[in-house]
Amino acid sequence: MLTGQQYKDSLKDGRNVFFEGKRVSDLGTVPALASPLETIAAGYDKYYSNEPDAVNPMTVAPRSPAELRDRVPLITQMDLLLNTTYQSLMTLQVAAARLAGVTSGLIPRINAYVEKARLDDIRITECITDAKGNRSLAPARQEDPDAYVRVVGRPQDGVIIRGAKLHISAAAFGHDLMVMPTKSMKPGEEDYAIACAVPVSSPGVLITNTTYHPRGGDPRDFPTSSRVSIPDSMVIFNDVFVPNDRVFLDGQTEHAAVFAHSLGLWERLGGVSFMVVQADELVGLAQLIAEANGTARISHVREKIDEMMIHATLLRAGLEAALAHANSTPEGYFYPDDMFTNVTKYQGAANFNRMVRNLHDIAGGAVVTAPSMSDFDNPELGPLLEKYMSTGSEVSGEYRARLFHAIRDTTADAYGGWHLVTNLQSGGGLFAQRLVTRKHYDMDRARALALKAAGISSRASDG
Amino acid sequence: MLTGQQYKDSLKDGRNVFFEGKRVSDLGTVPALASPLETIAAGYDKYYSNEPDAVNPMTVAPRSPAELRDRVPLITQMDLLLNTTYQSLMTLQVAAARLAGVTSGLIPRINAYVEKARLDDIRITECITDAKGNRSLAPARQEDPDAYVRVVGRPQDGVIIRGAKLHISAAAFGHDLMVMPTKSMKPGEEDYAIACAVPVSSPGVLITNTTYHPRGGDPRDFPTSSRVSIPDSMVIFNDVFVPNDRVFLDGQTEHAAVFAHSLGLWERLGGVSFMVVQADELVGLAQLIAEANGTARISHVREKIDEMMIHATLLRAGLEAALAHANSTPEGYFYPDDMFTNVTKYQGAANFNRMVRNLHDIAGGAVVTAPSMSDFDNPELGPLLEKYMSTGSEVSGEYRARLFHAIRDTTADAYGGWHLVTNLQSGGGLFAQRLVTRKHYDMDRARALALKAAGISSRASDG
Amino acid sequence: MLTGQQYKDSLKDGRNVFFEGKRVSDLGTVPALASPLETIAAGYDKYYSNEPDAVNPMTVAPRSPAELRDRVPLITQMDLLLNTTYQSLMTLQVAAARLAGVTSGLIPRINAYVEKARLDDIRITECITDAKGNRSLAPARQEDPDAYVRVVGRPQDGVIIRGAKLHISAAAFGHDLMVMPTKSMKPGEEDYAIACAVPVSSPGVLITNTTYHPRGGDPRDFPTSSRVSIPDSMVIFNDVFVPNDRVFLDGQTEHAAVFAHSLGLWERLGGVSFMVVQADELVGLAQLIAEANGTARISHVREKIDEMMIHATLLRAGLEAALAHANSTPEGYFYPDDMFTNVTKYQGAANFNRMVRNLHDIAGGAVVTAPSMSDFDNPELGPLLEKYMSTGSEVSGEYRARLFHAIRDTTADAYGGWHLVTNLQSGGGLFAQRLVTRKHYDMDRARALALKAAGISSRASDG
Amino acid sequence: MLTGQQYKDSLKDGRNVFFEGKRVSDLGTVPALASPLETIAAGYDKYYSNEPDAVNPMTVAPRSPAELRDRVPLITQMDLLLNTTYQSLMTLQVAAARLAGVTSGLIPRINAYVEKARLDDIRITECITDAKGNRSLAPARQEDPDAYVRVVGRPQDGVIIRGAKLHISAAAFGHDLMVMPTKSMKPGEEDYAIACAVPVSSPGVLITNTTYHPRGGDPRDFPTSSRVSIPDSMVIFNDVFVPNDRVFLDGQTEHAAVFAHSLGLWERLGGVSFMVVQADELVGLAQLIAEANGTARISHVREKIDEMMIHATLLRAGLEAALAHANSTPEGYFYPDDMFTNVTKYQGAANFNRMVRNLHDIAGGAVVTAPSMSDFDNPELGPLLEKYMSTGSEVSGEYRARLFHAIRDTTADAYGGWHLVTNLQSGGGLFAQRLVTRKHYDMDRARALALKAAGISSRASDG
Repeated sequence: MLTGQQYKDSLKDGRNVFFEGKRVSDLGTVPALASPLETIAAGYDKYYSNEPDAVNPMTVAPRSPAELRDRVPLITQMDLLLNTTYQSLMTLQVAAARLAGVTSGLIPRINAYVEKARLDDIRITECITDAKGNRSLAPARQEDPDAYVRVVGRPQDGVIIRGAKLHISAAAFGHDLMVMPTKSMKPGEEDYAIACAVPVSSPGVLITNTTYHPRGGDPRDFPTSSRVSIPDSMVIFNDVFVPNDRVFLDGQTEHAAVFAHSLGLWERLGGVSFMVVQADELVGLAQLIAEANGTARISHVREKIDEMMIHATLLRAGLEAALAHANSTPEGYFYPDDMFTNVTKYQGAANFNRMVRNLHDIAGGAVVTAPSMSDFDNPELGPLLEKYMSTGSEVSGEYRARLFHAIRDTTADAYGGWHLVTNLQSGGGLFAQRLVTRKHYDMDRARALALKAAGISSRASDG
Repeated sequence: MLTGQQYKDSLKDGRNVFFEGKRVSDLGTVPALASPLETIAAGYDKYYSNEPDAVNPMTVAPRSPAELRDRVPLITQMDLLLNTTYQSLMTLQVAAARLAGVTSGLIPRINAYVEKARLDDIRITECITDAKGNRSLAPARQEDPDAYVRVVGRPQDGVIIRGAKLHISAAAFGHDLMVMPTKSMKPGEEDYAIACAVPVSSPGVLITNTTYHPRGGDPRDFPTSSRVSIPDSMVIFNDVFVPNDRVFLDGQTEHAAVFAHSLGLWERLGGVSFMVVQADELVGLAQLIAEANGTARISHVREKIDEMMIHATLLRAGLEAALAHANSTPEGYFYPDDMFTNVTKYQGAANFNRMVRNLHDIAGGAVVTAPSMSDFDNPELGPLLEKYMSTGSEVSGEYRARLFHAIRDTTADAYGGWHLVTNLQSGGGLFAQRLVTRKHYDMDRARALALKAAGISSRASDG
Repeated sequence: MLTGQQYKDSLKDGRNVFFEGKRVSDLGTVPALASPLETIAAGYDKYYSNEPDAVNPMTVAPRSPAELRDRVPLITQMDLLLNTTYQSLMTLQVAAARLAGVTSGLIPRINAYVEKARLDDIRITECITDAKGNRSLAPARQEDPDAYVRVVGRPQDGVIIRGAKLHISAAAFGHDLMVMPTKSMKPGEEDYAIACAVPVSSPGVLITNTTYHPRGGDPRDFPTSSRVSIPDSMVIFNDVFVPNDRVFLDGQTEHAAVFAHSLGLWERLGGVSFMVVQADELVGLAQLIAEANGTARISHVREKIDEMMIHATLLRAGLEAALAHANSTPEGYFYPDDMFTNVTKYQGAANFNRMVRNLHDIAGGAVVTAPSMSDFDNPELGPLLEKYMSTGSEVSGEYRARLFHAIRDTTADAYGGWHLVTNLQSGGGLFAQRLVTRKHYDMDRARALALKAAGISSRASDG
Repeated sequence: MLTGQQYKDSLKDGRNVFFEGKRVSDLGTVPALASPLETIAAGYDKYYSNEPDAVNPMTVAPRSPAELRDRVPLITQMDLLLNTTYQSLMTLQVAAARLAGVTSGLIPRINAYVEKARLDDIRITECITDAKGNRSLAPARQEDPDAYVRVVGRPQDGVIIRGAKLHISAAAFGHDLMVMPTKSMKPGEEDYAIACAVPVSSPGVLITNTTYHPRGGDPRDFPTSSRVSIPDSMVIFNDVFVPNDRVFLDGQTEHAAVFAHSLGLWERLGGVSFMVVQADELVGLAQLIAEANGTARISHVREKIDEMMIHATLLRAGLEAALAHANSTPEGYFYPDDMFTNVTKYQGAANFNRMVRNLHDIAGGAVVTAPSMSDFDNPELGPLLEKYMSTGSEVSGEYRARLFHAIRDTTADAYGGWHLVTNLQSGGGLFAQRLVTRKHYDMDRARALALKAAGISSRASDG
């Protein structure tokens, strides 16, 4: 296993990482990149063991509903890159099982890769979403054939790929990029049916970085985002060579969706678990600021907090139902129920903005006008701010200002905006979750209930 | 145990039942009362056993989470009066246990009553809500002291009670009225701390009846409400004598709420279970009418059905979470988790009208303008209606008309209106459910998450 | 002009009217039909004049924005049949002007018909919506070619039509049926491009009736619907001969939509005006019942009424904006702005159910469980009901019971259900109103604002 | 009048302005303050005239409904500081008229101040909201008596004030601070009934600054906020002397609310006008990004844009209704109707977050992950971004990236967060707008409609 320092050193491998138009050779030199780097390094140190064959225990799949449930609090605490690494390895294992009868040559490659990745203690990110070009055209019919990642060459010892993957969290901080087709492919789209693990340092890989990390100001004004931020990337594969032992699918169009589907099993739990925690956090912020403002007993304020508590509890109910009805793969790995997970994600995503509205309504305009914590440091200004931001002897001005900054940082500034968008978009947007619902809902039961209400014994005999 | 016929005969006991201003000596003579009478009688026949000590198996409380779960489908199928009987008996048993150390004399009475009620196979209704008078005044300070049911006399062998209880489902069809205080009482309100089982036939008991049963027209135009209807009553206790062995609380103000609270444990499961079934039924009606109208593949119609499926599944998740986290009373009876049940009821009640809107939007104006099924019988008119209500060879006009009537009957006529109101009001209205949420929500966890987001190690040290 | 009695006599013309499967030769003999008959007759008496050339002043179109505005209160007070008569005559006049250059022969017919209808003081209903069959097929491609009303014969002196029209309010109570194509037609659909005025008494016309008029019970329990009810009809044209002077369009497919479009100008005002009044009525019911319940000062009750007031005022704002931006036809008739009218209808329709929910939440369960007013008449029961329904010396039990019945009647029974459906469906459902919005919204202005926000001078130069 | 340069010079007056903990002697040296400085200076140049008695035409109140309407587009285009200056002067004029009979000595002072302010062409900001301390206590009963701004000394030639005012937009950029009581005061609160115009440069005035101006990065990534930003301030009055000729109210508690109320008349128009423009801008952004993504014809995308168009049009209807029903002050100045303005603000504020959700749902995750425009400048990276961000030959990658940045900047970053909060809070939060609604709604009309529905001729006679 690697220590945090070994991890940091391992990234100095010539990777082509960009930030604001400039190539960054040492991630630690750009504050917005140094912060996640340290977070991830700390994760390495946390799980480090110098036993010879040690592997990170978080990279093992749950084998029972109880193990699945125990994983929930861990997931919401571990860093995102460790989480994607875990998801990638699980995805490969399940995919290997599903491809077993089909493409026998690939299975040993996958198993070997997984074993080595665990032992080398590397971090892996998931590359799914393609550039896509014109949404109404299939990959092979695009004006630009590279709108979806594809194989443009097949030398004897590997493949050469070209294209771009979007919305990749932490791409610049991992060792490997797990490239998977974004959807199933059709005959004629063989070049697009490519799954492989690409080292970040491969020639031709270019990685952009966007981030909600604060660009300046006092870190106390950004109490969460200054500590916790993970950049998002576009990853460009500009004719990148991938050796054969890292190619896990190549041309088997009918199996192209196996990887994305397998990934779906593992990534949902994280998404929903985080939403539940976030909903509770919003309740807590609302309650604390109402108390600090001296308005916690006003009826309309309480009603707004009620609504937030009901929302948070409903999401928790959805998570509990998904865990109570956990399913297992044929390989014996347990994952939460698709349907319950989905409607919970939908509910959480669709109502997050409303809960933020409640919080802002309760907190007041000082969410965006509270003085900077650095203003409190000024010897002339500070004591006056303390005096006027305080609402009584039990609520110091500084404490109240910190709450306002926390609310602004998490819901009304760059990081809050990132949540507004990603809560909606993770898993493909609200419409994608409707499609899953259509697929899993038990319509036969609903029809039977309706026919009974109509006093119709069966449609066939009447219709 | 009683057969259905024996049950019907047992109601001819001189009870003071009114319908539309007239006293009704034989419930079977008024169509709106005869229908529920037959439904309940059928329930007697269904569970009848001539074994000497047989009791109805539905009156036994679940002893494990699994038994609790198994009860769900049974509850949504049994008649409402059997359900209130079961709830009343469970309430008494739990209340007896809770009152154990307090008022020792009452416990044997309660136990004896429960045992006899089971053996006699009687039906019991729950009388909670008082007339209440001025909502801002306590019972003892009302202009009319009878605004809450109270003891107005205490002869040696019993008590005399006066007052009225509202919203009593099926009161005219049971044998006993389980009178309970609507809330906790304070010192000085001793006369209002009265719980007792009053025979419906007691002199001084008057019972009104309101109903959504159709007042005429073709039963096929009211496919559900013509089959399934239970009247609601106001029960007036006009100086009613109750013998001591039927008095379960008298004057112990501090324990007045024990009964209502115990009842709460048992009634919730029924309410939420029914809401889940109803939500699925609405989905089914929407899907069937969309198919019959030929619009099931239109995008905006599908999206409305999506929303209904998501709603129904979210309610089901709430029920599943409540069952997965079932609690047990000290006596070992299992009941669903309060918090999950509550937010599920809230969600179901608050969004029912929106789901009905979706259904009406999908179905179209024929929900209220479709010809009567009796019009189809007319030899001149019928074939033309069949011709013009049909939407193709696979959808007969009559079938489609029946769907419209089912939608109107369950959502846009007397029965539908009853649902709109009672879904909101059962359990005390939306606000009551907010209060329960405030009580059970884990605010400490939420605060801790918020303080962490604000980078505040503890409020005490900062504030 | 006709007196009310003359009107009633005029309907005894052999018309084929059905109610619940039976032919009704005298509308006055069926209570559910007698009630609207009397209402309409009273409208005749109200406007009656024995001047020789007198016409009803309500059948004249507004000639200025001020006249348009003055019409609003009148429209919400006149009976529905007078309103449809007015709309039909206006529709014909505007249609005549628009067809002027096209089909010269038809104009004099239309003008003559309008003049005669005014002088004869007849009532006219609008027949638009066809049976439609399979929604995904055009009229001429239906399995049953009669799914849309069409010409099946053309004798020298007129046309013979076949088909059915749905959702016709008051069809059985008017003299003429104004048949119009439901939409534009295409070449090959000439037989469906038929507009004509069909006497209700024509052989082959069959009219069903459905109604929310109470089927029994005490009229005081149905304070609005027992006074105000208009049946809805399906009108079947079973090979009906229409003489040439009543045919206003026949085969001119490209002009088939002129009538429906002209009608749209006039019917909107009524729909929106009624919604505004209804929204205020709901506020009033909520406020009165809160006062009667003694809860009008409770914070959450006030907030729900706030929401209802805001809703009602927003609809009123929409109506005011539509009047302030009234447009005129080339003929100089003024009608409210399409766009503002439409979004107001959408807002009113989409939120009506939510306002009803608020009302029910405020009022309580007695909306559906309050005793019948006839129960108050019972000498034994009445005084007790008065005692227990009262909430203090200022609120009599009877008064409070009447409020509950009014709320149930208008929002939670047959009439309330009719509103739930027709508020959504009038004008074609929520989706139809979205289509109108798409057509009229000034997207160019919106685009320009967006490009400015993006700092893009013009799309063309950048894109 | 002043030129822009003269204005900038005029601010170098020793004012005590702070930014991020440091005193700023020259506003032009801090980028986040230099930007608004230039914007305001440009406004000076725009209206500059060297005529001797010239005044800015924007500081004159509308004298007719037509003038009021013409003001709308001007208000949404002028800078915020000119707008607050105009509002302050109008407020003083109306307040002077209202105080006429009361405190005769003050009127000439007010008039003289207004005249001089116009001629000197100064800029004025409005200082209303106090620090407030414990919300449940009146000003005079606070633990800290300075929680509301008050007079702490009365030397012969003026008053000395102490306290703080919050949420002051552009305070550091104006010449005078218009201090007004936040609400009506009671006997015993005389020291809090203080209105006066305080020069920003007065000793003892301290001004903080918070801003959504970007702290770094490429301005093209912040296309709106890099051009348009106005800081918000807390203004502290630390024993500030105000000469008598600038004191407009001192101790007349019963008239304390006159100023805030007068201000309300003028500030509403700006708020609502901006909301309407913003709603249209969101529609435009949604439409452009849907087109750029190639999804503008997908049904669920169109429905979301429909909803946004309906929302924008409903707000416009509210503004139109408010203008159509403009009222005039006794002095003949026209202002928009209070009630229509209020419900429009409520609707706009309450639904802004939902419209932002729709926009984010339509746009996709690239709102927060699109590469920086500076990445496009990189010679290695730029062409690849252009290739992969393009969706076809008609949509360049750069154009599409700019749209994503505009959406992020205005709705999902610091500026967007500022909107989320201030749209809700301007005018006092949603609850404050409910209170205004309660005050102005015509409840008598609503009651009458309800009584009519209940068939009750008058409440008095029945109740």
